[in-house]
Amino acid sequence: MSAAGDRPVVIASNRGPLSYRIEGGEPVGRRGGGGLVSGLAPLVEDGRATWIAAALSDADRAAGRAGITSADGLSAHLLDLDPEDHRLAYDLISNETLWFVHHGLFDLTRSPAYDATWWDAWAAYRRVNERFASAVVELSPTGAVVLVQDYHLTLLAPAVRAARPDLSLVHFHHTPFAGPDGIRVLPPAARAEMLGSLAAHDACGFHTTQWSSNFRDVLAHWPTGVDATNVFASSLSSDADALRDTAASPACDAALFALDQLAGDRQLIVRVDRMELSKNIVRGFDAFDLLLADRPDLRGRVTFLACCYPSREGVAAYAVYRDEVEAAAARVNGRWGDADWQPVHLATDDDFPRSVAALRRYDVLLVNPVRDGLNLVAKEGPLVNERHGQLVLSTEAGAYDELADAADGIHPFDLTATAAALAAALDRAAPERRERAAALATLVERRTPADWLADQLAAASA
Amino acid sequence: MSAAGDRPVVIASNRGPLSYRIEGGEPVGRRGGGGLVSGLAPLVEDGRATWIAAALSDADRAAGRAGITSADGLSAHLLDLDPEDHRLAYDLISNETLWFVHHGLFDLTRSPAYDATWWDAWAAYRRVNERFASAVVELSPTGAVVLVQDYHLTLLAPAVRAARPDLSLVHFHHTPFAGPDGIRVLPPAARAEMLGSLAAHDACGFHTTQWSSNFRDVLAHWPTGVDATNVFASSLSSDADALRDTAASPACDAALFALDQLAGDRQLIVRVDRMELSKNIVRGFDAFDLLLADRPDLRGRVTFLACCYPSREGVAAYAVYRDEVEAAAARVNGRWGDADWQPVHLATDDDFPRSVAALRRYDVLLVNPVRDGLNLVAKEGPLVNERHGQLVLSTEAGAYDELADAADGIHPFDLTATAAALAAALDRAAPERRERAAALATLVERRTPADWLADQLAAASA
Repeated sequence: MSAAGDRPVVIASNRGPLSYRIEGGEPVGRRGGGGLVSGLAPLVEDGRATWIAAALSDADRAAGRAGITSADGLSAHLLDLDPEDHRLAYDLISNETLWFVHHGLFDLTRSPAYDATWWDAWAAYRRVNERFASAVVELSPTGAVVLVQDYHLTLLAPAVRAARPDLSLVHFHHTPFAGPDGIRVLPPAARAEMLGSLAAHDACGFHTTQWSSNFRDVLAHWPTGVDATNVFASSLSSDADALRDTAASPACDAALFALDQLAGDRQLIVRVDRMELSKNIVRGFDAFDLLLADRPDLRGRVTFLACCYPSREGVAAYAVYRDEVEAAAARVNGRWGDADWQPVHLATDDDFPRSVAALRRYDVLLVNPVRDGLNLVAKEGPLVNERHGQLVLSTEAGAYDELADAADGIHPFDLTATAAALAAALDRAAPERRERAAALATLVERRTPADWLADQLAAASA
Repeated sequence: MSAAGDRPVVIASNRGPLSYRIEGGEPVGRRGGGGLVSGLAPLVEDGRATWIAAALSDADRAAGRAGITSADGLSAHLLDLDPEDHRLAYDLISNETLWFVHHGLFDLTRSPAYDATWWDAWAAYRRVNERFASAVVELSPTGAVVLVQDYHLTLLAPAVRAARPDLSLVHFHHTPFAGPDGIRVLPPAARAEMLGSLAAHDACGFHTTQWSSNFRDVLAHWPTGVDATNVFASSLSSDADALRDTAASPACDAALFALDQLAGDRQLIVRVDRMELSKNIVRGFDAFDLLLADRPDLRGRVTFLACCYPSREGVAAYAVYRDEVEAAAARVNGRWGDADWQPVHLATDDDFPRSVAALRRYDVLLVNPVRDGLNLVAKEGPLVNERHGQLVLSTEAGAYDELADAADGIHPFDLTATAAALAAALDRAAPERRERAAALATLVERRTPADWLADQLAAASA
């Protein structure tokens, strides 16, 4: 196999680099954000890569029916999947089963419960993967490296392998990967199908060694008969230039001005997350509550801004959780707030410039997920923060591996420890704040999205 | 070290072999039941062993204050622990934390949350363990083998080891043992303390290789500096003679007569469990519901008797679960029952003769725990059943390892598979039923409680 350096590349992911909306009767495309697009887009821009993704909206479908779609210098093949198949595969299997399994989020006393509907959804998930496999088979140039992204697309490798032995297949998992105890929660037949298909890649990558080692342990428990899979760890990074562009935008400056008004001369704790069960938002407020109970001197002197933008609102468990998050914030405000000071501000609308402004403005950034494949916010904060902000970071976030030396590590279930870490970060003297903030930025800047891409291409040929 | 065959033995367990109640102003002791007492009692009866346990009631305390207590040929030292310490250690740490961790039962979005109360409870758990350690140090004959039982007593080894290097220490865990992903849910300091103390035993035993291998994986992830611990798997068995005595009792015959009236000429599915989150009682009813939906011919032809006796009623999560179990049973009865036939009978009082009668009478025994260290009911049924009953058994119960060849294995989260296994077991023709029932009994009879005891003693000297 030739080195990957000059081979064509095919990317397969559920969400593509472009999303469309109908304007004046025509689908108009825009480039999406996020580290994945940043990492992979340069390949597409220089014409080396083909990107295959699902059409996620009617506008996407309208655009996709015309064949390859292009906008903002990017192009993609948007697959017009059966909407019911895609809904079952995306909601019931990807987000309500695999996501829960890999993050350990099931309340096992009560869920999951695999019934005929679930098995129908599994068949739909398989069909969606087969559609992707057919597109890869059809569209891949000879000798290409195929980069398959994430838990939505775990079943396509065997069909691609059978039809196109000339291709190299790399799977990258952006979530955690469950260890043997967690993966047992999948039905044995589905688990075996998934593990066999993952092992049929030339390489499987994860953000940290914790997840790659879980994957190895799982394969050791349930051997697939394939033992040549190259298992590797390589963390994604945020796109520093794009983030700094946003940080320098007038919209972000305006948001920062509003935050200055909000915080005044108080210290500011910030979190920026999807409204997501794994993000541990309630315990964050509960820890802040403990902090205010233990430290009367901090009352009125610190504000907690939680930017928690909507996520998976169609999933019942997320709606319940949103209510719990709002109740927890209200509890803290009811207990400690007064006419001059609202301890917690919970912002639940999706406002990217304000989120970036919050990252510029924090004195302490709280990132305390129960479990997280990586957590890019933990890496984005240090890139744009302007106040020598400190990072209180869950040891269960993949990013902790890289940032441990300059972050305040916390066990996400330990409210006592979280409150203590917040106190330590708030109390820290200026010289040490500066030093740790600089160290954080240095650690973050060690890696770029291009490094992550290069690791995948190298793994294909290793 | 001499062979364990002739060495004195000390047993340390939270619950001892005797329990007391006050009768006429005096504490009167009775021997407890269960495989642990059956396995260990012979050692005590012949004077070789000393049993140290917690006084669990005021009557126990009254008995224990007089020193060693004796009844029914058994004797025990009942430790008069500080009641609040014992309550915190038993409820909050043992049953609400360690039990949940090892069974994977936490709904991690919401619990656990370690606060000052939890850390106080951890200190209480440590003090209780220290009291046990002191008693072991004081009461153990020279060169004794100390058999420490279960997750209530994980912290006593280092103190015993330091004061009494002449003793051999064996820990036996009756629950599952969480793998690395699960054990991470414990706070790092508590986890390290527990693992270091477990590793300080000469040997650590578990019912099956799944749990012993999890323990090994956990020690590999978080090395304790001790690597000489002998890790072994040895399953407990029920006491066949005692069980058959109960089965032959007039009380059991009377209960069997009542069950005959209840079932009539219908087939009978039985479950016998504590009302416990890990036992998966709701999904059992839901699978039965699917079975009746899929198989109209079975309606009116099969009755499900669920003997679910009370457990940990003071724990809020258990009270909630009991309501869910009752609602699930009512749902099935409301949907399918009629004037002549009540599909589900849920018996929630603790009636041992009736439970044994149910084991004599079942056509199909459903044992479908989410996770279970062993599950003795799965072994007791085949010993006393009189109708060539079939066993539908969770692959996640420790007992599955031994009984797989003659049981209908099910994934406990898979309602479709559970309904199908119930159907297959109910439909099976008589010759095959006989054959499988006989095979089950043979598999169960391969091991006795004495084998389990011998394995522990052998592990001490290995």
